[in-house]
Amino acid sequence: MGSSFGHLFRISTFGESHGGGVGVVIDGCPPRLEISEAEIQFELDRRRPGQSKITTPRKEADQCEILSGVVDGKTLDTPIAIVVRNKDQRSQDYSEMQVAYRPSHADATYDAKYGIRAVAGGGRSSARETIGRVAAGAIAKKLLREIAGVEIVGYVKRIKDLEGQIDPETVTLEQVESTIVRCPDEAIAPQMIDLIEAIGREGDSLGGVVECVARRVPRGLGEPVFDKLEADLAKACMSLPATKGFEIGSGFAGTEMTGSEHNDAFYTDEQGQIRTRTNRSGGTQGGISNGENIVIRVAFKPTATIRKEQETVTNSGEATTLAARGRHDPCVLPRAVPMVEAMVALVLCDHLLRQQAQCSWW
Amino acid sequence: MGSSFGHLFRISTFGESHGGGVGVVIDGCPPRLEISEAEIQFELDRRRPGQSKITTPRKEADQCEILSGVVDGKTLDTPIAIVVRNKDQRSQDYSEMQVAYRPSHADATYDAKYGIRAVAGGGRSSARETIGRVAAGAIAKKLLREIAGVEIVGYVKRIKDLEGQIDPETVTLEQVESTIVRCPDEAIAPQMIDLIEAIGREGDSLGGVVECVARRVPRGLGEPVFDKLEADLAKACMSLPATKGFEIGSGFAGTEMTGSEHNDAFYTDEQGQIRTRTNRSGGTQGGISNGENIVIRVAFKPTATIRKEQETVTNSGEATTLAARGRHDPCVLPRAVPMVEAMVALVLCDHLLRQQAQCSWW
Amino acid sequence: MGSSFGHLFRISTFGESHGGGVGVVIDGCPPRLEISEAEIQFELDRRRPGQSKITTPRKEADQCEILSGVVDGKTLDTPIAIVVRNKDQRSQDYSEMQVAYRPSHADATYDAKYGIRAVAGGGRSSARETIGRVAAGAIAKKLLREIAGVEIVGYVKRIKDLEGQIDPETVTLEQVESTIVRCPDEAIAPQMIDLIEAIGREGDSLGGVVECVARRVPRGLGEPVFDKLEADLAKACMSLPATKGFEIGSGFAGTEMTGSEHNDAFYTDEQGQIRTRTNRSGGTQGGISNGENIVIRVAFKPTATIRKEQETVTNSGEATTLAARGRHDPCVLPRAVPMVEAMVALVLCDHLLRQQAQCSWW
Amino acid sequence: MGSSFGHLFRISTFGESHGGGVGVVIDGCPPRLEISEAEIQFELDRRRPGQSKITTPRKEADQCEILSGVVDGKTLDTPIAIVVRNKDQRSQDYSEMQVAYRPSHADATYDAKYGIRAVAGGGRSSARETIGRVAAGAIAKKLLREIAGVEIVGYVKRIKDLEGQIDPETVTLEQVESTIVRCPDEAIAPQMIDLIEAIGREGDSLGGVVECVARRVPRGLGEPVFDKLEADLAKACMSLPATKGFEIGSGFAGTEMTGSEHNDAFYTDEQGQIRTRTNRSGGTQGGISNGENIVIRVAFKPTATIRKEQETVTNSGEATTLAARGRHDPCVLPRAVPMVEAMVALVLCDHLLRQQAQCSWW
Repeated sequence: MGSSFGHLFRISTFGESHGGGVGVVIDGCPPRLEISEAEIQFELDRRRPGQSKITTPRKEADQCEILSGVVDGKTLDTPIAIVVRNKDQRSQDYSEMQVAYRPSHADATYDAKYGIRAVAGGGRSSARETIGRVAAGAIAKKLLREIAGVEIVGYVKRIKDLEGQIDPETVTLEQVESTIVRCPDEAIAPQMIDLIEAIGREGDSLGGVVECVARRVPRGLGEPVFDKLEADLAKACMSLPATKGFEIGSGFAGTEMTGSEHNDAFYTDEQGQIRTRTNRSGGTQGGISNGENIVIRVAFKPTATIRKEQETVTNSGEATTLAARGRHDPCVLPRAVPMVEAMVALVLCDHLLRQQAQCSWW
Repeated sequence: MGSSFGHLFRISTFGESHGGGVGVVIDGCPPRLEISEAEIQFELDRRRPGQSKITTPRKEADQCEILSGVVDGKTLDTPIAIVVRNKDQRSQDYSEMQVAYRPSHADATYDAKYGIRAVAGGGRSSARETIGRVAAGAIAKKLLREIAGVEIVGYVKRIKDLEGQIDPETVTLEQVESTIVRCPDEAIAPQMIDLIEAIGREGDSLGGVVECVARRVPRGLGEPVFDKLEADLAKACMSLPATKGFEIGSGFAGTEMTGSEHNDAFYTDEQGQIRTRTNRSGGTQGGISNGENIVIRVAFKPTATIRKEQETVTNSGEATTLAARGRHDPCVLPRAVPMVEAMVALVLCDHLLRQQAQCSWW
Repeated sequence: MGSSFGHLFRISTFGESHGGGVGVVIDGCPPRLEISEAEIQFELDRRRPGQSKITTPRKEADQCEILSGVVDGKTLDTPIAIVVRNKDQRSQDYSEMQVAYRPSHADATYDAKYGIRAVAGGGRSSARETIGRVAAGAIAKKLLREIAGVEIVGYVKRIKDLEGQIDPETVTLEQVESTIVRCPDEAIAPQMIDLIEAIGREGDSLGGVVECVARRVPRGLGEPVFDKLEADLAKACMSLPATKGFEIGSGFAGTEMTGSEHNDAFYTDEQGQIRTRTNRSGGTQGGISNGENIVIRVAFKPTATIRKEQETVTNSGEATTLAARGRHDPCVLPRAVPMVEAMVALVLCDHLLRQQAQCSWW
Repeated sequence: MGSSFGHLFRISTFGESHGGGVGVVIDGCPPRLEISEAEIQFELDRRRPGQSKITTPRKEADQCEILSGVVDGKTLDTPIAIVVRNKDQRSQDYSEMQVAYRPSHADATYDAKYGIRAVAGGGRSSARETIGRVAAGAIAKKLLREIAGVEIVGYVKRIKDLEGQIDPETVTLEQVESTIVRCPDEAIAPQMIDLIEAIGREGDSLGGVVECVARRVPRGLGEPVFDKLEADLAKACMSLPATKGFEIGSGFAGTEMTGSEHNDAFYTDEQGQIRTRTNRSGGTQGGISNGENIVIRVAFKPTATIRKEQETVTNSGEATTLAARGRHDPCVLPRAVPMVEAMVALVLCDHLLRQQAQCSWW
């Protein structure tokens, strides 16, 4: 239980890292949206392993197939099922992990909870599960763009203590994609790449922060008091693997300001729109979008699976050590960017439909 | 829409700051739990305004009444409705705010979304809405304690840049309640109180961080992949008014470590339980509780409503200034502690029931 | 669990027959709908006991109070809480039932399920629970009328084997309310009243069928494949106390026809609308409203609680007999009419919002 | 929207009659249940077209594949995705229907609602959609049998006016499967078969009633007040294609009895269990299972698609006639039996988990 997300634009993902395949069923996509496998594949390619020298060298094409819900390139408002077949299975790499629990990984908790576990590749706790999210996110992004012109751009803000300077007002997808580390700060990106490569050679790993901006979000999205926009964004992002924190707008740093410093002063712009001079709110006030850019940040811990030897126990509780074999990302951040974008898109899409249901009558 | 939270232990809150009253309906509380109005009132008293010199001087008794779901002091498994009548209405304080939007408050977004707004006291966006959460949280806490011995303790970790040193392993409710600022660090608490009083005199406001620990949480709570325990905790906390960030375990700081530094090594304790030597994970791995203490932190921005004059616009878009009258908290942190505890309790309770449904068969 | 209904126009009812009160919280009513306590009270008065000589003589004013969600007579889009206080408690009438289970009543199953039960008045299984539904239904009806001109009229179609001839195309609320039995067939209504009085004197009870029509329902409501309009109508009606069957359109009788006899031929009317010449479909095809009248029927069994002596067992399983005291309806049908109307309205309202969310974009 | 069913044992179906395939994702199946593709295939074979001379002659093997959620023959508690590829596509048969709306079919309402439609084979409104339900039902049945020994047996009770005499207490799957019409009354079954063949030759169609019994259902399933067991059963069954009515226990006929005739007298059996001497309640009282057999009936209208010429309109509203080509069932009842069984199993399974969540604590 727990593999569905959203109320009106609702996705259900399925699949383990090994087995027949992974995918998603989207229920609630409005009819007559043009969508192609190529558009979905574009996002999956940004997520897939083996895309650059700083990701895991596993080669997985992650080719998607739309099984239902689309005829002649248009959605029917019926469930859209998308499947990606699993390939390149090297189960033998996992024989040791079958017995020894990887520290800070889901091995031990899955065994404790379910009494059974798909050992190969981490099963359902594998980052491979996010394929369904990213595929659904591609459709959500398209819908948001078509209906409201919304633009969502994510990027690596920080790796360890290397932080990029990026302007959320203007950053583009092209800038992000121009570097394999997806940090559109030309000065810091090469340093990040060098650091990831160096740490990878040591068999260790790195964490960092992904920032994501959504521009041209309509006013009025968000459903107080529990389904506030920032609450659903937080849940969406914190459901991604390896996340430890979430911020919107000024975040934790904003707590060191006084109210008079922190408040975003209102003014009316030339088009007669009520705007704010600053955006410490990060695009929402009272849980509802205010028309400013939505800016969020997500903390990703360093990858748990490392080649360095670590102290651990076996599934029967005996002390042992483990140095992971297999091929793992020394840093998930570059591949996490499309995941965060997808989650932001899914939340906005769901809230756009909810807003339409309730507030468009008179 | 959006006023319900939880799947199996599900609450629906209602009520504006002015009008008949506020409250909550809890659907899904197991039968035969002993619960009294006094236990609920204890938590409401920790939340209520006027409780000390550093909160708003509004006097509201916030007396609760259980309308249904409890007979002879025991729950029936039928919906538990709890109502708190509104009192002490000084609507005149809000006449100015009816026209001028408070910066960084929900006034403008509610108008934009709904085209109507309960102006007095902030209506539904008032912190008064949290009464229903705290009342439901009192029952959730009781249930968790009875079923599993879970202890939940929240406290003020930081006000602006004044940070307390508190050990989540050992901190007690009594220690927290021994000071009106709810920071159980005897050295820093008086400084916090002085700072709040000083800022309050200036008509300005402060933010900070609440930390909350849940001890003796059973292993196995959390439902990957979307309803991971940390994802639901994040949503729960980020649905509270004035929140800007959420962390679990090592949080944002943990992203500056390497994997080998960050991973929590497993060992087997004297009772034969698999434990971790450190707790950077904050009590969950792969979205599932691992039996260690759950430790989360929530960032609260400085109160938006301040007496200092601020630049803003009227609801027709004309430039104006606003210096709020009325009686407002210069810092919500001390009153936010029971709110965070309540949200943590509600999430854990819901997941305890979900775990029981799925994983207790054989 | 199970006390909420609807996705976007969602109600949560609460309350037992005895205790503080009963009521409902409505989450998802669009903003700026004019609604008054008088409009709600009108429907509650049609439901309340003691309204005529053929209902239970219990006198309960069932006066409603709107606690939240409405300011200056208009909805805010925040939860609307409505409470009716309990009164006229004669708990002593129930002392015998505390021990002996009423045959075909919920006494035994509540004990088996929950291990506890609000004995007085049947607790949550009392028809008193439907107050919340009828109150919410009053608002749903208003919304449907304002948005789409929908008219919902329910009536008693049959009592035992006395069946009225009523034309769903033309029947009006005024006709229904012109007789205490709510069967707008002038010939049969007096016979029904006589029969109910006679059976009531014997201490026995009667069942029958309520029919309900919804006219001017917009085309396109219903969400295949599980939330088909008839599926949600069936659930809504079968959740009412004492129901044993549900039909739409031709119902069970239609199964005796051939396809060529049963199919509703299409034609285009003078306004250019695609219509059907007959309405055996009952207003839906493929789970979606087709613009014709929605016509449903609900079977209500004879009231379980009777004064005649019956064979039963005590809660410890010993054989005994029971002749119920207290004041019970010999036939619930007249009071069930507003309940069925309410459930139909709630379903249509929910689906109207769902349709708006998904299908109003281009 | 609307393609998911259930709260804790939750299924999401997908797929149109043409396109990549149809299937289901099950979220919430407890871990460590043994399940094989063969067990699922057994039920799909009972549902598939071409299985006998009285069903459509379309040959579809409907071979299922489990994509996820099962490793080494055991469930993981992760989503179980099951896919059946589409084959034998004769889209040309549908060219006429693309323009002319089939009377009493979903063609017109899908166009009205969505503005787009998968014309071939009826798209999502095709009975092919039920493959996902039947596949999920196979797993639900297995779970119910393993946990509680529940037996679910459905059968054709009536075709047109030919009604079988079947004892729900004793009827077995073997008896049902011994005749292609699935009516385990040896006297009436051959007459039913003859009637279906005769009507089929005329290009017309038939309806009827499926009855289904669930034996050994644990006491206590059902969640008043909206998710009563009979309410969820009604929704489940009325969401099947071509259904017009639902009954439990005495159903509509029971409304002609008095309370003293209708009530099920309690007694204590030799095992000390509280039982009822009759079962007019159909296995539930107050919305909760009472340990007696659950007996429900579902009315299926005559198949809408017939070869006889009918009056209709084109999608632009012009009058025309239509005599369907393609290969259609003259009577869906024999194939509907496993569908009804599946829906009953899904409801019971969901409620078994819900009951466990709430009522198994002390």
